[in-house]
Amino acid sequence: MRMRSVLRYFLRDRASRLYSSSAAAEAQAVRPARDRILTLQSMNPQVRAVEYAVRGPIVIKAGEIEKELQQGIKKPFSEVIKANIGDAHAMGQQPITFLRQVVALCTYPDLLDDPRFPQDAKDRARRILESCGGQSLGSYSTSQGITCIREDVARYIERRDGDVPSDPDNIYLTTGASEGIANILKILVSGEGRSRTGVMIPIPQYPLYSAAISELNAVQVNYYLDEEHCWALDASELRRALYQAKEYCNPKVLCIINPGNPTGQVQSQRCIEEVIHFAREEGLFLLADEVYQDNVYSQDCQFHSFKKVLHEMGPEYSSNVELASFHSTSKGYTGECGYRGGYMEVLNLHPDVKAQLVKMLSVRLCPPVSGQAAIDVVVNPPQPDEESYQQFIQEKEAVLSTLAHKAKLTEELFNQVPGIRCNPLQGAMYAFPQIIIPPRAVEKAEELQMAPDMFYCMRLLEETGICVVPGSGFGQREGTYHFRMTILPPVEKLRLLLQSVKDFHVRFLDEFS
Amino acid sequence: MRMRSVLRYFLRDRASRLYSSSAAAEAQAVRPARDRILTLQSMNPQVRAVEYAVRGPIVIKAGEIEKELQQGIKKPFSEVIKANIGDAHAMGQQPITFLRQVVALCTYPDLLDDPRFPQDAKDRARRILESCGGQSLGSYSTSQGITCIREDVARYIERRDGDVPSDPDNIYLTTGASEGIANILKILVSGEGRSRTGVMIPIPQYPLYSAAISELNAVQVNYYLDEEHCWALDASELRRALYQAKEYCNPKVLCIINPGNPTGQVQSQRCIEEVIHFAREEGLFLLADEVYQDNVYSQDCQFHSFKKVLHEMGPEYSSNVELASFHSTSKGYTGECGYRGGYMEVLNLHPDVKAQLVKMLSVRLCPPVSGQAAIDVVVNPPQPDEESYQQFIQEKEAVLSTLAHKAKLTEELFNQVPGIRCNPLQGAMYAFPQIIIPPRAVEKAEELQMAPDMFYCMRLLEETGICVVPGSGFGQREGTYHFRMTILPPVEKLRLLLQSVKDFHVRFLDEFS
Repeated sequence: MRMRSVLRYFLRDRASRLYSSSAAAEAQAVRPARDRILTLQSMNPQVRAVEYAVRGPIVIKAGEIEKELQQGIKKPFSEVIKANIGDAHAMGQQPITFLRQVVALCTYPDLLDDPRFPQDAKDRARRILESCGGQSLGSYSTSQGITCIREDVARYIERRDGDVPSDPDNIYLTTGASEGIANILKILVSGEGRSRTGVMIPIPQYPLYSAAISELNAVQVNYYLDEEHCWALDASELRRALYQAKEYCNPKVLCIINPGNPTGQVQSQRCIEEVIHFAREEGLFLLADEVYQDNVYSQDCQFHSFKKVLHEMGPEYSSNVELASFHSTSKGYTGECGYRGGYMEVLNLHPDVKAQLVKMLSVRLCPPVSGQAAIDVVVNPPQPDEESYQQFIQEKEAVLSTLAHKAKLTEELFNQVPGIRCNPLQGAMYAFPQIIIPPRAVEKAEELQMAPDMFYCMRLLEETGICVVPGSGFGQREGTYHFRMTILPPVEKLRLLLQSVKDFHVRFLDEFS
Repeated sequence: MRMRSVLRYFLRDRASRLYSSSAAAEAQAVRPARDRILTLQSMNPQVRAVEYAVRGPIVIKAGEIEKELQQGIKKPFSEVIKANIGDAHAMGQQPITFLRQVVALCTYPDLLDDPRFPQDAKDRARRILESCGGQSLGSYSTSQGITCIREDVARYIERRDGDVPSDPDNIYLTTGASEGIANILKILVSGEGRSRTGVMIPIPQYPLYSAAISELNAVQVNYYLDEEHCWALDASELRRALYQAKEYCNPKVLCIINPGNPTGQVQSQRCIEEVIHFAREEGLFLLADEVYQDNVYSQDCQFHSFKKVLHEMGPEYSSNVELASFHSTSKGYTGECGYRGGYMEVLNLHPDVKAQLVKMLSVRLCPPVSGQAAIDVVVNPPQPDEESYQQFIQEKEAVLSTLAHKAKLTEELFNQVPGIRCNPLQGAMYAFPQIIIPPRAVEKAEELQMAPDMFYCMRLLEETGICVVPGSGFGQREGTYHFRMTILPPVEKLRLLLQSVKDFHVRFLDEFS
């Protein structure tokens, strides 16, 4: 009976990959399209082509199931667990106290005389407010972001990279990292037909990249990470992808995600050197998505920024290779997704283009100023001689050590399941295990006009309430199947969740073998 | 000597309309372009074509002058007054206490037990937090925005429009109004050559529209507001513009700004009826930019929302005309620009397109959650039986009555200057006076490869420190010249500012006649 309801959903939905026929849309009475100016046929075809699996049909379905649970409809589970998205606070992670204190003080400066707030938080809030027009978070900042915060970002980068100089004028505060990435891609794309800009992205990738590429009518050029070697990036694969792409487009951008999303891979210094060398040789603009730079768990791994490695390769590289790197308040140990804070550092940008970038950014006026205040705490946390240091360090380390524990736990438990194979989660906050889907299940999925891993994940959701994202939303080698799951639920819940996935997987194999 | 320095600036800058040669860019050592992948030639030409005067070359120049003043360089003035942008708090307007209390409580929930915060603010904060994942502002919200806030928006619209129903499912919270407008335009544009989407915009316009149209490679279709009749919109002018545009593009969007930016005009119910009738007849998607809906000063005027008028015209219209309308935390009496909060209500959107819109919005994950909390206060302010009501009403009315006073003052003082003519400022927060520029000054400007009103505004800035935006940045009938100035400085400062403009104008006429 339950299976029938799942099937009905699939059939009603036909191809659930198409949002156009999503249940949310169908919930409204469909009016005759002839009356509408804006239809699927007349709308922007590049927007129509966008796919974004992290909030795709499976998440829409999860929302429906949540509503059904609220209405008292019986399910074999009591809650939906949204392991589809890296949303730390939603999974129970607590905010870093110091960050919230600084932002609250900026928001309501009457609190600056409140003895319950520590002096170091007040000092930071005062400094931020002094850089705001009218000393108010409610003023627009400059388009590039508040100057003193950009200075703090530059100093943070210098500390991180062992005193490699950073110029605040190369720093741009952003509305989360996503906006920065989309804007850098926007300024880079041009051309028609075979001259269209090719953007090289890893497979698997974070689907912001494919979405932005679709929207900008650029060409997605896939290079495959090596699952057999812990999702490592291999320069010869970059070369293969580039040369094939040159047949049909003009590849000029190379995107790297390190630590990897969804793979969790942390790149070695040597790998990064090879990538930079390749970019220099082939004339590629580098985009380094480094939002998980604080999320490294494996003892054998260390985060190396592209900026630092670029500098160490000498002036031939450091003065020439164009590099944009991104960071965010949303990940790391703060997990402040809602503030939409972030920054990018853009190196070796031609001054004319820099002026164009600032102009383009000025149209959106400024990034959210409270998000700017939040990123300031990320890059300028309490120092050992400051009042808030002890509490801050405790909170930070509790988050990071718990994540490290969960990374290990997830890898271990997945690898105990027959038909699931999971690389070590060296960093970031996701597992991306490979799953066996038996041929009969693949056939069933094809009947239903679904990707096999979408069929798998929909079944997982319907039977267990666990919401994960099919690997097809990130890209994977043909014939392999994966899903992405965050490791953010609290340890005990995560353990139960992994057990549920295991039981489901065994049942699924059983049913379709 | 001073004039020479101005001229040097202009000459060095050549055409200061081009950002590519802006002083900011020149401040960096220009590296040889051959080394760069991303150059003016190779970058996205649609981005290159964008102009955004509100933060354009004149504002860059103002920033430079501010730095010179800080360095102790003598000027005929002691400060730069940025009357270029509607940035209320930067001009000294104080935040609405209740709004900041609610946002601070959401930011730092420990304050929920603080007796210094009023109960009604705590109630609202608790309600918002209960709708946030993990009860934290740091969680992502749904792509459309927090449900309870969208419900509050819908109820606000119903109250505003005399109980015309509003469905929270048609409400989308946005990152300021700008993001909403850009996104609706993005989903609307399509086609190549003569099929390219034409977007009708008023002239003068707010340059977000022209910027978005450039970036999207759509066609800007100008309709002119009637300066002789207080910048009224005339349906016959809409018809002229539409029919001419049909020769070379596919006009399918009509943008309205009411109250007007930069014109300050407030449209009559009758005018809005005509516009809606026209849109229905000609098959146009309506965009109503209503961010100044609370900023109406003239006793003879009243704000009528497009939604309300649409409803009053009967089901033939209200069930068919596609309408997106926009509101913001940045204007009104709150002036909270930095929070980047806002909403849009989209009516009669085809369900398939709605699903596409939500998909597109999901790529940016969510609007800043603190901005969502801020818009909640805008639409759900303290009620007469609540603790904070008295203070709230006092603060609100103080802001609005001061703005009304400044609107009147500005109109009166400008109209006392020979060679300046200013329509009544019925609403919004700008004056857009017409200025006479003598033929000799026009010649001089042409020599310098500048628009004549840019030349005028640069001179005004250099001589008085007052930063206003040339009319050419908003559009104006050929041969007429204007500038846009905010009325946000405090009354006494505004009075001095207007006196300075007057003195400058008289000198300018004298010099060039």
